[in-house]
Formats: sequence, C-alpha cells, structure tokens
Amino acid sequence: MQEPPGREFCTSVRVYIEDTDAAGIVYYANYFKFMERARTEMFRSVGLQQSATFKKDIAFVVYSIHARFLQPALMDEELEVTARLTKARAASLVFEQTVRKKGSAEQCCTADVTIACISLKRRRPRRIPPEILKPFTN
Amino acid sequence: MQEPPGREFCTSVRVYIEDTDAAGIVYYANYFKFMERARTEMFRSVGLQQSATFKKDIAFVVYSIHARFLQPALMDEELEVTARLTKARAASLVFEQTVRKKGSAEQCCTADVTIACISLKRRRPRRIPPEILKPFTN
Amino acid sequence: MQEPPGREFCTSVRVYIEDTDAAGIVYYANYFKFMERARTEMFRSVGLQQSATFKKDIAFVVYSIHARFLQPALMDEELEVTARLTKARAASLVFEQTVRKKGSAEQCCTADVTIACISLKRRRPRRIPPEILKPFTN
Amino acid sequence: MQEPPGREFCTSVRVYIEDTDAAGIVYYANYFKFMERARTEMFRSVGLQQSATFKKDIAFVVYSIHARFLQPALMDEELEVTARLTKARAASLVFEQTVRKKGSAEQCCTADVTIACISLKRRRPRRIPPEILKPFTN
Repeated sequence: MQEPPGREFCTSVRVYIEDTDAAGIVYYANYFKFMERARTEMFRSVGLQQSATFKKDIAFVVYSIHARFLQPALMDEELEVTARLTKARAASLVFEQTVRKKGSAEQCCTADVTIACISLKRRRPRRIPPEILKPFTN
Repeated sequence: MQEPPGREFCTSVRVYIEDTDAAGIVYYANYFKFMERARTEMFRSVGLQQSATFKKDIAFVVYSIHARFLQPALMDEELEVTARLTKARAASLVFEQTVRKKGSAEQCCTADVTIACISLKRRRPRRIPPEILKPFTN
Repeated sequence: MQEPPGREFCTSVRVYIEDTDAAGIVYYANYFKFMERARTEMFRSVGLQQSATFKKDIAFVVYSIHARFLQPALMDEELEVTARLTKARAASLVFEQTVRKKGSAEQCCTADVTIACISLKRRRPRRIPPEILKPFTN
Repeated sequence: MQEPPGREFCTSVRVYIEDTDAAGIVYYANYFKFMERARTEMFRSVGLQQSATFKKDIAFVVYSIHARFLQPALMDEELEVTARLTKARAASLVFEQTVRKKGSAEQCCTADVTIACISLKRRRPRRIPPEILKPFTN
C-alpha cells in the first residue's frame, strides 16, 4: 500500500437554522454531516461520486469516529471543513477532519473518521477497488 | 372506491433537543417527520410496513402538503400526532393530520397530506394494490 | 404597503447522502430545509441575518406551506432553489419557491410559504420593522 | 466524588424512514440522536429535564465521542438504546452507550460519550450542581 500524500482538502459550510438546536448552537451530530460533505466533495474532486459507485455495488460507510467538540458554531457562521487521508488500508480509509470558523484558527470539532468499503447488497466489507484508491495515493 | 371509515389514529411523540432550533422551538420541517411517524404507525397497526412493501416495489411518497403552523412545540413536551384517512383514490391517499400538545386542545400544526403510491424502481405512480387499501376501508 | 418587486432569488444546493432516505431519493421534509436556505440567502443578500434580528427580539417563523412534490431529487444532484416575494403584509411575507434540477426545467418541488414575524421572547406575532421590509420593496 | 452505580438505562427507538439514507440503512449521525434520546430519558427518569435546567443557565453538551458502527440498523426495526454512567467528574459525565437490535445481542453502534456541563449564557464549562449529580451517584 502506498503512503497517501495527505493533502488537506477544504470545503465551506454555512450554518443554517436547521443545523442549530435550542441551546442556540450547532447540534453536535450535525458536525458529522458537515464532515461527510467534506469527504464527499474530496471524492468528487477526484472524479468519484457515490451515486456512481452505488451502481457498482460499492458504498463507503463510517466504521469509527473519535471526535472532540471544542467550541460551538453559531447560526449564520461560515465554517471550513477539512479532510485529510491519513491511512489507506485494503478495505478502509482513515481521515483526519476538522471544522473551524472561517478565516480563524478556532476549531469547533476535530475527528478521526474511519470509513469502510462495503458491498451495498451484501452489506459486508469488501476490498476498495484500485481505481478508487488511485487518485488519493498519487 | 369505498368510503374510508375515517377513524382517527393517534401516536405519541416526545420532543428532543434534536428536534429544536435556535429559536428554542421545534424546527418547522420536523413536524412533517412527526406526521410521517403517525402515518407509519397507522400502517403498522393494520399490518403494513414499508420495509415489506419496498420488497414488492411499492413505496408511498408525499405528493402534496397543505400545512399551518399554529403554535410552537417546545423541548421535552409530549405531543399527540393524529392521522385520519379522508380520501382513498386509485393511486393516492389523503390524510388529515394534527400535532397537538398532549392532553390539550392546543394545536401546533395541522396538515392535509396526499401520499402517492409509486413503483420504487421506475419512480412512477402505480395503483395501490387492493390488499393494502383493504384494511383502511373496512 | 408597496408592491414588492418580485425579483426571483436563486441559490444552489448540492444533495448529500444525509438528505436522502431508504427510497433512494431526497426525504420530502428536506426540501423545506432547502427552501429555508434560499430564503436565508435572499435575506442575507440584502444585509439581513437572523443571528442579528434575534438580538432585536425578531424572528421569522413559517406560518403556512402549500407544497407539491413533483419529481424526486437524487444524491449528488445539484439543485437550484428559488424564492420570490409575492406578498408583503404588516406581520407576514409570502414567498413562491421552487426546487429544480440545475440547468433544467424539471421541478422537484414547488411551494407557497408564508412566514410570520414574531417576538422571540413572547412567541407572538409582531409587525415587521420597516427597515427589514424596505430592501424587499424597493 | 462518589463512585457512580453504573446501572444500565435502556430505552426503545423505532427506526423510521426519516432515519435512513440512500444506502438503505440508518444514517450514521442519527445513532447519536438515538443515544442522546437515551441520555435524555435517563435524566428524565431521575426528574431532570433540560427545559428546566436551561432556565437555571445549565446545559449539557457533548464534549467527546468515541464510536464504532458495527452493523446497520434498518427501517422499521426496533432498537434498544442503552446508557450507563461510568464516570462523574466535577464538570463532566462519561457514558457508555450501545444501540442494539431489540431482543438480540447484535450491536449496531457502541460509544463512549463525554458530556460537559456549561453555562448556557457564557458558553463556558461550569461545575455540575450537586443536586443534578446526586440521583446518579446514589
């Protein structure tokens, strides 16, 4: 397995009222939506879309998350959500991700996210096809 | 088409912080989740589950909604969500629904919801099979 | 009350897996999130943000919706969400909104949405301050 | 600090279509909603409600999560969501939580969740008032 280059991918997310809760802050589980948006855009940036991989019976599902919530994000704020591939294994990928306030070093949430490649039909782990891995490891 | 009996089905929903927004009230789109839970439980009460109908290529999707939001529901409140079938057509069903505070006449939301029967694969309208309609119209 | 100009505001929304359901399509209640994002961006485009109006005890909440769901939107699709002010009353605004597939005439959802101005503290209707209405009616 | 008794609290959650995604399974971030519902019901079972603690400027927010997703939950399934207090510190509580299929040993998700007590107004950590901690540690 090649060493992944570890380029940081970054995408912008605007906080809408739908993302907040009665405490006036972003509801914690929604940071995981933002992080998945960043991974999705990272995949899209190298030509991969789940709507296409689904047709080949390939899906990526989250296998584990280690996350810390450091500071609340608020309505109307613009966030930068990053994703960096830190490990590429035969059937899983590990990403280091952060959500931070735009143009600031203030981190709202950081996480290590492991996603596993599965067969959509059998709902079982499967090897990541080389053509999917390739854009990340070159 | 037989006249549907119009019995009111009622289910309970607890408001969690996940349902609220920064205005301190239930986020408006979430009432539509609560209403679908009531329709789902109504179907389940007569032996119908979407996980089973999906396998027969049958799904019900919302075709139209007319809703009014009368009063906000708040965190920790218990709500009663009702559903009453008011029209049964060849390929669609119309429900009258309300969300009210438990043990109170105060309505949070009322809606007329039309759901259409579709083929899941072709994503096109199809007739509602008689065995699905029967429990509602007897 | 001046006649509102009726300019159509349009914003882009990408469909992520978080927006879909087991039928493989966008979950119906999520179109209402997309529509609120468009209204929020329309307000922002004239210098209004809820995080600021909240501090003045002013919030806008949805009072009624008449919506039709015409065609499902799918994962990875890019949508155009429009909002056009069609009525400006003392304490409420009416918007005509559509969600359509980008670069296409295919409409996924159309809706008339009435939002009411409330006092956040008292949770009661209040007049829309003229400085909020002005950018929309000039 | 007394040793918490570690009783396991358990609540039921029904999976609705709103909880699923286009892969036909529960969307991963939604397990965190289910887990918060269990913690909320556990608090309620000893007489604590966030709607009441908010009025005393006390909120509990998630500070960290370590979660593993072991097996997908599906639409219409009934889940048992457990919460067990494993550590009670001055300003935070640690819970061990699981989501499993009802009447089965099959685990869908397991997590260690640390929640921190904050002042809602200042959005800063604060000590957990003894009257809140007491029901858990007796």
